[in-house]
Formats: sequence, C-alpha cells, structure tokens
Amino acid sequence: MSENQSALFENEGISQPEHVGKEAVKRIQQFRKKKKNHLQLIDGILQGDKTALSQAITLIESQNPKHQQQADDIIKACLPHANQSVRIGITGVPGVGKSTFIETFGLYLLKQGKKIAVLAIDPSSSISKGSILGDKTRMEDLVKEENAFIRPSASGESLGGVSRKTREAIILCEACGFDTILIETVGVGQSETAVHSMTDFFLLLNLAGAGDELQGIKRGVMEMADAVIINKADGDNIDRARTAKLDVNRALHLFPLKESGWQPKVRTASAYYNQGIDKIWDMIQSYFELTKSNDYFEQNRTNQNLYWLKETVQEHLLNSFYQNEEIKKRLEIAENEIQNNTKSPFAVANELLALYKRTISL
Amino acid sequence: MSENQSALFENEGISQPEHVGKEAVKRIQQFRKKKKNHLQLIDGILQGDKTALSQAITLIESQNPKHQQQADDIIKACLPHANQSVRIGITGVPGVGKSTFIETFGLYLLKQGKKIAVLAIDPSSSISKGSILGDKTRMEDLVKEENAFIRPSASGESLGGVSRKTREAIILCEACGFDTILIETVGVGQSETAVHSMTDFFLLLNLAGAGDELQGIKRGVMEMADAVIINKADGDNIDRARTAKLDVNRALHLFPLKESGWQPKVRTASAYYNQGIDKIWDMIQSYFELTKSNDYFEQNRTNQNLYWLKETVQEHLLNSFYQNEEIKKRLEIAENEIQNNTKSPFAVANELLALYKRTISL
Repeated sequence: MSENQSALFENEGISQPEHVGKEAVKRIQQFRKKKKNHLQLIDGILQGDKTALSQAITLIESQNPKHQQQADDIIKACLPHANQSVRIGITGVPGVGKSTFIETFGLYLLKQGKKIAVLAIDPSSSISKGSILGDKTRMEDLVKEENAFIRPSASGESLGGVSRKTREAIILCEACGFDTILIETVGVGQSETAVHSMTDFFLLLNLAGAGDELQGIKRGVMEMADAVIINKADGDNIDRARTAKLDVNRALHLFPLKESGWQPKVRTASAYYNQGIDKIWDMIQSYFELTKSNDYFEQNRTNQNLYWLKETVQEHLLNSFYQNEEIKKRLEIAENEIQNNTKSPFAVANELLALYKRTISL
Repeated sequence: MSENQSALFENEGISQPEHVGKEAVKRIQQFRKKKKNHLQLIDGILQGDKTALSQAITLIESQNPKHQQQADDIIKACLPHANQSVRIGITGVPGVGKSTFIETFGLYLLKQGKKIAVLAIDPSSSISKGSILGDKTRMEDLVKEENAFIRPSASGESLGGVSRKTREAIILCEACGFDTILIETVGVGQSETAVHSMTDFFLLLNLAGAGDELQGIKRGVMEMADAVIINKADGDNIDRARTAKLDVNRALHLFPLKESGWQPKVRTASAYYNQGIDKIWDMIQSYFELTKSNDYFEQNRTNQNLYWLKETVQEHLLNSFYQNEEIKKRLEIAENEIQNNTKSPFAVANELLALYKRTISL
C-alpha cells in the first residue's frame, strides 16, 4: 500500500495566491465572525445594538428566500416591542433642503433626549442615483451621533416592495429603542401616499414664493400635509417667505377638515441657520397631544395596518394577473382594440378575465 | 276510447280571473308588442329614437344574463357611432343648485343647437332615495324638450357597477345623436373620481363664501376641477360671490398645472336668474379648442378607456378574493391579529394569499 493511497493521505492545501492581501483576508474573516444568526440579531436589536439593527434590515432587503424567512422571524419577535414611537413623514421637491432640514431637526430632537431613526422611500433611486439619503456625506453631523440611525432606501424596486421594506424597517427601529422615526421621500411621485400611510404626521417642505415652486409638487400631496414648512426663510427671502406662508395658509383652509380633527399649519423656518425648528417641534407635539387624546392616533395606526394588508393583497393579485404569460400576449391586442374603439373597455376586461380563469384552472 | 282520452282532447283554458282589469291586460299586451328586439333597438338608436335608447339602457341595467348579452351586442354596434360628443362632468354638494344649473345650462345649450343627454352617478341613491335626478319633477322644462334626454342613475349598486353602466349609457346616447353629455354627481364621495374619468371637462359648483361651504367637498375634488362655478351669485350674495371667486382662484393657482395645459378657471353665475351661463359655455368651448388642438382630448379619451379596462380587471380580481368563502372566514381572525399587533400586515397578507391559491387550484 503506497503512502498516497492511505486514507490518511492529505492533498496539499491550496495556498492563498500572492496577490490577495493578508489584511483583506483577515477583514473578511472578522466580518464573517461578526455576522450573527437571526436569534442573536433579535437579542441585539432589543438591546439597542445598531449593528444588529443594520444587519437585520439587510435581511429584510434581501431577495434570498432563506433571508426572507429569517427576516419574518425577526419582525415577528420585534412586533410586541414596536409602536412605542412617533413616525414623521417628510417630503418636498429636490432643492427644498430636505437633508439640511432633517439634519438640523434631528440634532434638535437628540438634544430633547430623543433617539432618531431616519429612513427613506425613493423607488426612483436607481434612476436618480440615490438623490435622497444615498449620499452618505449628507447629514454629516447627524450620522456621527450615537442616538441616531440613518438608513438609505433600498433601491431599484417597485414602490410596493420599497414600502413593505420600509414599514418593516420601522418596526425593527422601534424595537431597537428609536422613539422618533423620520421617513423622507421626494415630492414628485406616488411615494408620498406610501409615506403618508405609514406615518403619524406628514410634513411638506416648501420654498418661499408660492406658485411656481408648487408646480413640482404632485397633486394631492398638499392635501396630505399636516404642516407645511416654508424653508430657507432667511436673508432677503424673509419677506417672500411671509407672503408664501399667508398664501399656503389660505389654500390649506380651503381643504376639508382632517379626520384627525387637526387643522394643518404653516410655519417658516431656516434649517441652514437653525431658525424656527423649536416651534415646529412644539407644533408637532401639540398634534400628538390632540390625536392621542381623541384616539385618532391609535385608530389611524390600526387603519394603516389594515390598509397595508389590502395593498399587499391587491398588489399580489394584480401582479399574478399582469405577469401571466397568456395575459401578457393578449394585452397588446386588447389595448389596440380599445385604442381603435372597436371594443368597449368592459368587454375587453371580461375577455381577459375569462382567459385568465382558464389558465389558472388548468 | 272515451272522448277525454283522445289526443285531440283539450282541457278547458283557464279564463282570466274576474278581478284582473281588462284595461290592464290590454296595456301589458301593448307594452310587450312595443318592446323591440335588440336589432330593432340598434336601428332605433342610430336613427335618434329616444324610446329605443331608453329601452337599451334598461337592458344595460338589467341583471339578467340574457339582457346583458343583448346589451353587449348593442354597445358593440353603437361604438363606431359614438365619441362624436363632448362630455361634461358636474358636481357639487347638495344644496348648491345642481339641478337648477343643469336645467338652465341645458336649455341654453339647446338654443345653441345642441342635443343634450343628462346622466347621473349616485351610488348612494338607494340610501339618499334618489337625491339626484331621481325626482323627475326637477328639470321640468328640460325634460319636455325633444332634443334633451334625461336618465336617472341606476341605484342600489356598487360604484364600479354604476360607473360601468353610465359609461355604456354614454356610448348609446352618443350613437343616438346626443352631442353634449352632462354627467351629474354629488360632491361627497368617490363618485367624483369615476365621473372625472369618463368626462372631458369637470365642473365643480360652489356657493359664495369660500371656507365653510368647501368643507363638504371631498378631498381631491377641487384639484380635479377644470372650472369652479360660484353659483347663486345674485341679490345680496353678489359681493360674497366675488370674494369667493378670488379665494378659489388663488387656491386653484396653488395646484400644479394640468396635463391638458389648461389653467382651471373660476366664474360666478346665477342659474336661477340665468346669469353668467353664456360665459361658462364660452369658457368650456375655449377648453375644447385648446385640448383638441394639442391632442390632449383624444389622448385623454384613450387613457380613460385604458383606465376603465384596468379598473374592471382590478374590481373583478378583488371581488373573487374577498368573496371567497375561505377568505371570508379567515379575514376576521386576520384583522384581529393585525389590531392586536401580533402579526405584521405583510405576514397576514401572505397567509391569506397562500390560502386563496389553495382554494382556487382545488
């Protein structure tokens, strides 16, 4: 029996190639060691560990079904510890100064003893190359704070997907002890409705000189606002900001009273010069006093959860329909028939639905 | 073989009971004779016969599948002859004077040589006992006119059902030669969105003294308006109407520019005293000049048809889900889990969808 036929024989190990840095290998090994299993992540989150929180959110964002299952377990474990927070949605068109505002506002809240989590919804971020929160050099001061947690939006996703992930991230942040959740979005799309449906208070940032600046704001966003902040109310902008305040106030009064019983308010501020921030927080606090005393706060959160149940069901049902191969093939013809006015949309819909029924019952 | 065993034996016919009036029998027989088959109805409609139009709309409204099939055939035959019209949506809270406005406006349009059809969407009419168009004594003068056709809303139906029927009725009215379709709805619900999605021009009636009166208007309705009419601008109301006009105008300018390129306008009017009606029609005509020259008019109609295709598919898919017996049973538990915060809405949605999939693949 030759030596190299023995069961004890070992092939020579493949040694690390020369060009792989030993430092890099060590870093990867340490990182792998640090990666916790999901039970450890739950413990970490409940103990206020931001690294665990961050890793758990990464699991939420993963497309890997195994990660999804782990994420679901983490969320379920965190749920009883969530809901102890206020959730504030912040929107406004690009250039209005959202990140400066969030940094100044966040630093102010930290001084009030709050723990701040900043999340974002930006379904277009794959196109806009991360216009919001993507650039880590923004909010430079806030990001260094122990009691602040900043997480950019998951990118390259459908609005439904991004919304779900952000909603789940809120639960984890709350379970991790963050008591004030700021959710940022850009004032140019459907994402406002999503943010409005997952927050308690909805803040719209505007610029002075109402009119033109508002043109960029999507229909309906103004009506969702609990408060409009005229930002950059400084220097020679102050007069215009005051006029804008009056204009917006008048417009807000034309809308019907909100279900919360709250009359939306307008405030001027300069996030850059840290002016008017305290009054904004006072106002938001009086909103929470009102809505917690008239039970709107709790009722609204339940309604939001029921809304997300319905939204998720609807999104799934529509996806299975429109992603069905037979429907896809038929849809183009159907749309032509409608465009050429040879069939009514209702007749075409019935044909498509009959086709869909046949394919799923096969 | 006895006489009463012969195959030729006839039982004595059942004679009309004494208490059935002979006049009533005759009326029913005449009515049956007048009832045309659906090919005759198509001919009638295309020749401008209002009785045929009315009978065809009754087929559209019928729940009987045979009638539905006939209605579908009629709609298909009418489609190539439709679309030669302008469709104007009219809304406003109860008390704003909608029926007086439609009567005065309709009579004015008749004088301009137009043929007017007035339809209504009022999904709540079974509750409100036909608050709009139901009372035939309203629009007393308009209803007598040869070139006017007035049809109350199908009642006791879902909004989706009523919308579909009204959309199909529009097609028949147009094929019957009516070139101006007025569609009325009340300013208190989702029905505005439906009417907005089936008309070319959307008119909101308001009262003088902006503010309180607007409170009754559902969120978003103001933003849909192509024009706001301050009605009842007469007597000692004139000054308040002027102030209201300025206020509303300012509010309208705060909204983003419409896709049509049209800047929504405000006008004062007194339908009761027949004042300001001509200027409203001039304004609407300039809207049609603009949107027909910039191709928005045609594009919008195609988009509306595609919208109704999607709406119909969605309504059907959601109905099959929520009317599923297994889902119905499970949904209450699911909603409790959400209310008690033991499961996230996304987790619950996934469970329900898995259950639904199992029941339909059985």
